[in-house]
Amino acid sequence: MRPNKRGVLYGVGVGPGDPELITMKAKRIIEEVDVIVVPVKSKGERSTALEIIRPVVELEGKRILEAVFSMAKDDDVYRQCGAAAGDVIAAELDLGRDVAVITLGDVSIYSTYMYVNDYVSSMGYETAVIPGVTSFCSGAALAGIPLALGNEGLAVVPSARDTSMVEKALDVFDNVVVMKAGNSVSRLSGILRERGLDPGCATVISGAGMKDEYVGPLDTEREYGYFTTVIVKKNLG
Amino acid sequence: MRPNKRGVLYGVGVGPGDPELITMKAKRIIEEVDVIVVPVKSKGERSTALEIIRPVVELEGKRILEAVFSMAKDDDVYRQCGAAAGDVIAAELDLGRDVAVITLGDVSIYSTYMYVNDYVSSMGYETAVIPGVTSFCSGAALAGIPLALGNEGLAVVPSARDTSMVEKALDVFDNVVVMKAGNSVSRLSGILRERGLDPGCATVISGAGMKDEYVGPLDTEREYGYFTTVIVKKNLG
Repeated sequence: MRPNKRGVLYGVGVGPGDPELITMKAKRIIEEVDVIVVPVKSKGERSTALEIIRPVVELEGKRILEAVFSMAKDDDVYRQCGAAAGDVIAAELDLGRDVAVITLGDVSIYSTYMYVNDYVSSMGYETAVIPGVTSFCSGAALAGIPLALGNEGLAVVPSARDTSMVEKALDVFDNVVVMKAGNSVSRLSGILRERGLDPGCATVISGAGMKDEYVGPLDTEREYGYFTTVIVKKNLG
Repeated sequence: MRPNKRGVLYGVGVGPGDPELITMKAKRIIEEVDVIVVPVKSKGERSTALEIIRPVVELEGKRILEAVFSMAKDDDVYRQCGAAAGDVIAAELDLGRDVAVITLGDVSIYSTYMYVNDYVSSMGYETAVIPGVTSFCSGAALAGIPLALGNEGLAVVPSARDTSMVEKALDVFDNVVVMKAGNSVSRLSGILRERGLDPGCATVISGAGMKDEYVGPLDTEREYGYFTTVIVKKNLG
């Protein structure tokens, strides 16, 4: 609490899932703030980010608020969600309370937090971003493979929905990360074959740290959950 | 120490520079191991990774070894360096000592550790990779900008030396990270102009956390050090 002084807004990346992969800075900031804001897709939803910090941070006595971000994947809708969350947060900051919005992985990689950050900082409040370990770095670590070496490039695409983006990425880069690839493993296998690449150059990392964890080749017979990343390394093919 | 048992090799990412951005897992592993291996370009060189962990980890009583990786940027040379370091490490593992190779940023992003990992694991030793916060995630956090949002793609290139890779990345992706860009700020400004992009869509993050820290637009009059990243966001142009 900072009585007679506006609070500070922090966007905090809590890493890919293993609570031990939280940085010391993220742990300290979350412990110090008065209010924790949890982005959810709908009210009352279970928050993975909150589950990650629970074993590591004492939440007793903290105010926990939800910020609803619809799944619209539409920039205007996200901006509106960011503004709605920002207004609630600003009211807390005005009371001198520091606020942390917690987000899975790293804050700069596909996190809706940046919409909140833009809105709140444009109103003149102090904001800061605490980076975290990304899911794809953690996935590569689990698989024991590098994402990029030497003079190689690396591309990250948010999903395989935009087939042409995946294809262009494969044309230009030696290494391609496809996030949220759970429903696209068969399609990716097809895209690789069409380009004369051996599907064996791709590694799936799915449900890391969960009971359905799978780290292995593109298996088109399996079902994969939401937390599925595919790493394609053309030089392995 | 694991007497009568072979030690385990860990590749540990210690993050981008701020000691507080070390993960709790990295801190624990480094504290637990018997031997810390520091990759250097030449013997006796100051190690940035070692400076990062110094305020956070008690090094008293630890064996600290250097692993020389020449700057050749050549896959064969790196493989030889990895094997030489791997032989030294294997001798420690055989004594039952656990070993951590510490590396700046994240282990899977342009780290020579993976050459050591491949060599040592191919000899049948147990190895594990502990991911860290990348320099470009930390740079984006400092600049307060996202690396990618919504349906956008992201490209990471190791330097601007390969002009065609930078150009292709800009043709395909909304967001491009250029690492080790210290000597290439003028060239990057030229590449952006040639493609009709406003150089104002690029942000330089240089010497983060050091006394010559600079976070701002492409300033072609400035001199930049080794730790310089440029983030190009075409949608800002």
